[in-house]
Amino acid sequence: MAIVLVLVSPAMSGPGPKAVVMLSGGLDSATVAAIAKAEGFEVHALSFDYGQRHKSELEAAAKVAKLLGIEQHRTVRVDLAAIGGSALTSTGLAVPKATGAAGSSDIPITYVPARNTIFLSIALGMAEVVGAFDLFFGANAIDYSGYPDCRPEYVEAFERLANLATREAVEGRGRFRIQAPLMHLEKSEIILRGIELGVDYSITQSCYDPVNERACGLCDACVLRRRGFDAAGVADPTLYVE
Amino acid sequence: MAIVLVLVSPAMSGPGPKAVVMLSGGLDSATVAAIAKAEGFEVHALSFDYGQRHKSELEAAAKVAKLLGIEQHRTVRVDLAAIGGSALTSTGLAVPKATGAAGSSDIPITYVPARNTIFLSIALGMAEVVGAFDLFFGANAIDYSGYPDCRPEYVEAFERLANLATREAVEGRGRFRIQAPLMHLEKSEIILRGIELGVDYSITQSCYDPVNERACGLCDACVLRRRGFDAAGVADPTLYVE
Repeated sequence: MAIVLVLVSPAMSGPGPKAVVMLSGGLDSATVAAIAKAEGFEVHALSFDYGQRHKSELEAAAKVAKLLGIEQHRTVRVDLAAIGGSALTSTGLAVPKATGAAGSSDIPITYVPARNTIFLSIALGMAEVVGAFDLFFGANAIDYSGYPDCRPEYVEAFERLANLATREAVEGRGRFRIQAPLMHLEKSEIILRGIELGVDYSITQSCYDPVNERACGLCDACVLRRRGFDAAGVADPTLYVE
Repeated sequence: MAIVLVLVSPAMSGPGPKAVVMLSGGLDSATVAAIAKAEGFEVHALSFDYGQRHKSELEAAAKVAKLLGIEQHRTVRVDLAAIGGSALTSTGLAVPKATGAAGSSDIPITYVPARNTIFLSIALGMAEVVGAFDLFFGANAIDYSGYPDCRPEYVEAFERLANLATREAVEGRGRFRIQAPLMHLEKSEIILRGIELGVDYSITQSCYDPVNERACGLCDACVLRRRGFDAAGVADPTLYVE
């Protein structure tokens, strides 16, 4: 009689602890979701319909959730266009092309006022409801150095707030952790990590200003994505207008 | 020739600094708005349509904004019912009657997960857009001691986050202040302060579970309100079912 030894990875050993993962449908958040899965979390993905002009990213998010075998995927509507102030939600402001602003010290007009704070807050509410203490998001201090809410000190301040704000933490059932596993990675490193974990980047959408389901190729998000695939030495599966 | 000396109060000396005031339509937030006006702020009021079952409070908020002569009033839709978890947004959970939970150390099921964090985050985004650095809200550590996000340490943590999260603060144009002027007041003191400032409480709505435009009289919000008017020795203008 043969003795069969089966090695079970954390991801396969039944339901692990729960995590809420903010899933935009872009390259970064798809990689974050794959990382959370690989770490053995039961993933509850959260997307936002916030009046963004690039709403097709929500379809991309749904495809990513399906392909990664994510346990639950919810989309919350929050009408950020009602407060205005960003090229991403205002039809009156054009998305700038190839400004190089992302990566510089200037904050580009595609910055949405308080967006990460709003999204993390809603993710925190969802975490309380589903019983998760880990919140994952794709903040990156390198490519988005111009966004104040993508820096490590911001993430730490939110974690501190989360542990004061919520019934779960105050009643001692656990401590919230805000996880930003891409924080210090170059775009090319993110891509290589994702490919290692089986992410299919052809279904992700990064473009701020897509035209007929094709990426514009010129906005900051497209420029960063293209450079990332170049630097990683991997063929970019994105369909670009130009 | 007579020399006429005109003393101008801050509130009358033309547009003062701007403030964003979270206005629910209840007794507390109406008082907060009146306080911000009296302190000379140009008030930008913000209400939330968040799937609450007591949606008629939004009509109350509009009336309060009009009566106080508030400069701008916006309502942002955010679909908190999509994450569930509270009697205030779930039709499957009944609003408890006269539990006495508010004011005790227990957190009642009318607690909405991360609600103040979500609302303050959106208020922060609006503040960035309109150019305000003061955010007012009606947190109260006495009546709502069971709500973790109504405590002074929570408010301080949010203020710290706000000053790390936003373009306005990071680029040095100002420092955000989270103002909770009711924090240490009894309900009766809030009512007396509001009456002093001319607040008409008959148009405010506190009830979590109104029936045909009448307050139920039995939920925690109604109980606190009734006790407050009693303790203040002021006739309660509210129409109650019982």
